Amino acid sequence: MTDTPKTLSRWQLSDYGRQHLAYVEAPMPTPGPGQILVQVAAASLNFRDLLMIDNGMGAPFTGPWTPGSDMAGRVMAVGDGVKRWQAGDEVISTFYAGWIDGRPSPEVFPLGGPGPGMLASHVLLDAQWVAAAPTTLNLAQASTLPCAALTAWFALIEQGGLRAGQTVLIHGTGGVALFGLQLARLHGARTVVVSGDPAKRAQVLAMGASHALARDGDWIAELRELTQGQGADHVLELVGGANVERSVQALAPGGRLSVIGVLDGDRIGTSAYPLIRHQTVLQGINVGHRRALEDLVRAIDVNRLTPAIAATYAASELPAALDHLARGAFGKVVVTF
Amino acid sequence: MTDTPKTLSRWQLSDYGRQHLAYVEAPMPTPGPGQILVQVAAASLNFRDLLMIDNGMGAPFTGPWTPGSDMAGRVMAVGDGVKRWQAGDEVISTFYAGWIDGRPSPEVFPLGGPGPGMLASHVLLDAQWVAAAPTTLNLAQASTLPCAALTAWFALIEQGGLRAGQTVLIHGTGGVALFGLQLARLHGARTVVVSGDPAKRAQVLAMGASHALARDGDWIAELRELTQGQGADHVLELVGGANVERSVQALAPGGRLSVIGVLDGDRIGTSAYPLIRHQTVLQGINVGHRRALEDLVRAIDVNRLTPAIAATYAASELPAALDHLARGAFGKVVVTF
Amino acid sequence: MTDTPKTLSRWQLSDYGRQHLAYVEAPMPTPGPGQILVQVAAASLNFRDLLMIDNGMGAPFTGPWTPGSDMAGRVMAVGDGVKRWQAGDEVISTFYAGWIDGRPSPEVFPLGGPGPGMLASHVLLDAQWVAAAPTTLNLAQASTLPCAALTAWFALIEQGGLRAGQTVLIHGTGGVALFGLQLARLHGARTVVVSGDPAKRAQVLAMGASHALARDGDWIAELRELTQGQGADHVLELVGGANVERSVQALAPGGRLSVIGVLDGDRIGTSAYPLIRHQTVLQGINVGHRRALEDLVRAIDVNRLTPAIAATYAASELPAALDHLARGAFGKVVVTF
Amino acid sequence: MTDTPKTLSRWQLSDYGRQHLAYVEAPMPTPGPGQILVQVAAASLNFRDLLMIDNGMGAPFTGPWTPGSDMAGRVMAVGDGVKRWQAGDEVISTFYAGWIDGRPSPEVFPLGGPGPGMLASHVLLDAQWVAAAPTTLNLAQASTLPCAALTAWFALIEQGGLRAGQTVLIHGTGGVALFGLQLARLHGARTVVVSGDPAKRAQVLAMGASHALARDGDWIAELRELTQGQGADHVLELVGGANVERSVQALAPGGRLSVIGVLDGDRIGTSAYPLIRHQTVLQGINVGHRRALEDLVRAIDVNRLTPAIAATYAASELPAALDHLARGAFGKVVVTF
Repeated sequence: MTDTPKTLSRWQLSDYGRQHLAYVEAPMPTPGPGQILVQVAAASLNFRDLLMIDNGMGAPFTGPWTPGSDMAGRVMAVGDGVKRWQAGDEVISTFYAGWIDGRPSPEVFPLGGPGPGMLASHVLLDAQWVAAAPTTLNLAQASTLPCAALTAWFALIEQGGLRAGQTVLIHGTGGVALFGLQLARLHGARTVVVSGDPAKRAQVLAMGASHALARDGDWIAELRELTQGQGADHVLELVGGANVERSVQALAPGGRLSVIGVLDGDRIGTSAYPLIRHQTVLQGINVGHRRALEDLVRAIDVNRLTPAIAATYAASELPAALDHLARGAFGKVVVTF
Repeated sequence: MTDTPKTLSRWQLSDYGRQHLAYVEAPMPTPGPGQILVQVAAASLNFRDLLMIDNGMGAPFTGPWTPGSDMAGRVMAVGDGVKRWQAGDEVISTFYAGWIDGRPSPEVFPLGGPGPGMLASHVLLDAQWVAAAPTTLNLAQASTLPCAALTAWFALIEQGGLRAGQTVLIHGTGGVALFGLQLARLHGARTVVVSGDPAKRAQVLAMGASHALARDGDWIAELRELTQGQGADHVLELVGGANVERSVQALAPGGRLSVIGVLDGDRIGTSAYPLIRHQTVLQGINVGHRRALEDLVRAIDVNRLTPAIAATYAASELPAALDHLARGAFGKVVVTF
Repeated sequence: MTDTPKTLSRWQLSDYGRQHLAYVEAPMPTPGPGQILVQVAAASLNFRDLLMIDNGMGAPFTGPWTPGSDMAGRVMAVGDGVKRWQAGDEVISTFYAGWIDGRPSPEVFPLGGPGPGMLASHVLLDAQWVAAAPTTLNLAQASTLPCAALTAWFALIEQGGLRAGQTVLIHGTGGVALFGLQLARLHGARTVVVSGDPAKRAQVLAMGASHALARDGDWIAELRELTQGQGADHVLELVGGANVERSVQALAPGGRLSVIGVLDGDRIGTSAYPLIRHQTVLQGINVGHRRALEDLVRAIDVNRLTPAIAATYAASELPAALDHLARGAFGKVVVTF
Repeated sequence: MTDTPKTLSRWQLSDYGRQHLAYVEAPMPTPGPGQILVQVAAASLNFRDLLMIDNGMGAPFTGPWTPGSDMAGRVMAVGDGVKRWQAGDEVISTFYAGWIDGRPSPEVFPLGGPGPGMLASHVLLDAQWVAAAPTTLNLAQASTLPCAALTAWFALIEQGGLRAGQTVLIHGTGGVALFGLQLARLHGARTVVVSGDPAKRAQVLAMGASHALARDGDWIAELRELTQGQGADHVLELVGGANVERSVQALAPGGRLSVIGVLDGDRIGTSAYPLIRHQTVLQGINVGHRRALEDLVRAIDVNRLTPAIAATYAASELPAALDHLARGAFGKVVVTF
């Protein structure tokens, strides 16, 4: 502990709105029983961070806080009774603090509001709230996993039971979408990405997507054609709104639609008939638990899968990083500390 | 086979519309290879029969046909190669001809249009399209199982994995609803029925429902109160339309809504937020397969569960039986042959 | 906290062997952060307690400790940060400290060695290590659930997916067996108990078992007869040794055998052929997690199921209670504090 | 049908024993209702064929019959009512005739005894007993799938739910083993093959196995080392006998052992303790159903996976092909017609 500095730096909101973000210093804490102190190497940004910074997603502002939920770093010190970690271990955060396995208990909460935020040089965490980082990624890459990659894994693998040969329909090219593409390929699935941007369609094909379809075309018909009339076994629904009914129509009998994102609106509707006829499953997905994150880390290490990173920013450049995320990034936006 | 008469009687439609139903005679067929001839003892009516008689649910009228999908009867004769059955066996029909287990293949079809109809004194069937009748029910009772009871079983047990202590929310008091109530009780679940009719609420309480709530009251709040804030683990959605969103709001975390009926309209819509927050599952249910029907029959025999029958009509009284079904029945409407 | 006494009493082993048990006083602890202090009302005994007292199941003796894993009591005080409980709440212990849901992490451990023992007037526990007691049982009854009842629930319901109409074969009349009988009945299953003792066979029939078969008879043939040749869908294997192969032979196609107890020896063997032919599942069961215990508690409350208690002893009579357990009890042996 | 010859050729046993095999002519049959006539392009051999030819696996010899269960060919003619196929379609046989999905009914039976054998120039089959051949394989390759590949798929994917990052332990290099290796890799798993033959270890490494361990070494310890102490999540148990206990010891917590082969003896035994401690699942695997075969075919087509073929023999060389299989082949032995 001799090297631990006396202060840490963190981004902090004095009120909602990006203009109220400031990079401030604070005293370095000491881990209490069951806690660990982590030196953050990198934090990756999620769309949720933008919403939380802008308005707390509806929660009243109750005092200065630090945003950010995704982090990779090194354990600097451990509190009494901590056996899971020792100084020097590389770890990544879990999005839902305290959700270990199975169903979430009512007590779990997200990091980065209301839980502690990760956009800091050092963070104090319960030893249960982190998982071992992959051994085959650097920490900037590792920081991209806790939210976006786990959401895709949870939808397709943990809940979806994806198997080789199935068809996965992916909407857009955001963080969850690109991880969904990589993880579906890893399991031998056929992957079909729908995007409105020709350049991004070319990019996903370069990443190995089986097909990339134009959003303004008749992608339902094209998908059916590509699948001998079957349709998709899994849909990562990342658009929401009116897109959901189209996704339902694109499903194969027994297919499964994971409700994840609502960029085009949270109102979703459909005729019940295709649901009944095809015994379709629609399931809301809310990131996932630590055990699944550990499974994901292992899958990454065994297969040396590399996350797509759009850009890396220095800690002081957080506003530019948030701008990048807000205007749309192909791959994760990472901030290093 | 000495007792087999030369002719059979059956209800037949010369065009869509109940006024075109006639009870006609036809030559008695002989079972071909793999077929069985069944003397029908009773047929039970489903709401689908009304729709099929009225307009074929959209299919063009292509010639006289016999409606009805639910039947219990006795095997009179078997064709070459039939080992599953012998004369005298008591059997019930399967709603989906050819759906044995697992997922339905594209080749399966319902009895009572486009498959052969059961409202007849005798029916010729593939030996694979029937299951053994329960030994503890008479054939009038047994005839109620293939569609309504199996739908409830498939939603709650086969797909839903219902376990004791869970809360099942049931809308209305139709055929599927009452079987859902009985089967949920059989598995030790708490049952909550929502009905707009005080007399029917009294009836379901008499059948053992844990609670009966008024449709025009704030049943979501009442349900939460009854479940210590938790909500329902399973919903049998038999109303459709705007009711679906209320049902979604009534679900417990990790809860499951089975989309079955659309009396109030097939357009269903909801906010995505409760789906995501609670990782809700919505699944379309389309009756079920023969293996689940066999499981259901065994559950009935082991527990001596008795279906609710609203009324029994003679074969010649089919029009009155259909009227009864159309105006709403508490329990199944059965026609005996 | 004004009523909290200055000392507590607990049973303590100064060395392995029942003769080294003593009922001693110790200072009353104060709950630290995340901890609760519970006033024990009752503790129930398990066969494991006998083994732990006799020889620690192989672990070297490292100092005085308190045995016992099953407890029901009232929360007296809570430490900093505890939100799950408040003083006055009635709780039961979880057998595996820290196993909340899903798979157990390597960090979980049993109470009553190596974790803290429950045979005490007061116990200090992590707030995560207890579940709410059923509201429909007294605390003596509630104390029987954490190990025996949860094991039966986990084998049959959580892992086994038991449904009405299935056949459950239960060996003996120990704690897990009797709960297995009650829980199987609660789900509408047919229950067949095999016991060598005619009096106990009469007792399980009085508790509602469908059938009770003599251990020295040809119970495999009798079971097949009772199930129309099918065999058992689930076996609670509580005997071990040579009994396992007989149990395998008694299984229905697709059946499932839960390996739980090894009274007749831990060596288990079978021909592989029936396993392959029937696609049998054998699964080791190791009590279960807190979420399943919470599910079980809810099932008990909804159905007002009452555990079988063989006898209740005062705290000072622990040696007599252990003798009772060792010579065989029909129902749980409970010690009250 | 103008091109259909008047006779077909087939291998036929006049008594048990390879010396009683003869290649004989027989009249060409015409498909009856529901049947198809298939011109066989290739048949692949399984170890079961050797046993069936030698002694019928215990069944009394009741008259001349044709062995062989795995076939790929072209539909030549279809009988009345067949809609699944038309002339020219390329198909592969299903090992279990009539097992479509879910659990097998008691009526299913294997091809190649007691069902019709595939070692023939033409075979008459129920239209339900075949699946579409992969479009990316030739028919010699396609003939290898029905038994060996489906068994591996059923154990690992259909029943095992294999996911990327898990460790699969594979015993030996027989037909099921090599498909297990390929299918596990297809899902992103780590694969560890245990073999006693250094040359075969080199061959599986060339096929992409993560590791190949010597059978006479301490492969349990080596496996643990390779998996950071975890052990295997899945074992394909293809040896049987005393090997099973070693496999159990090699399993990770929550691991799963598929009981498939019994080359070293059908008596399997283990201590119950590791099963209980790790909540291990042992499951007998008996090939699989047609729906899973269709899933497998799709996985092969999407991923262009190529089966390993040891050698291809002309139809007249069946005795040499059987010799090759009997002395051990790396890859499937195929006979072309």
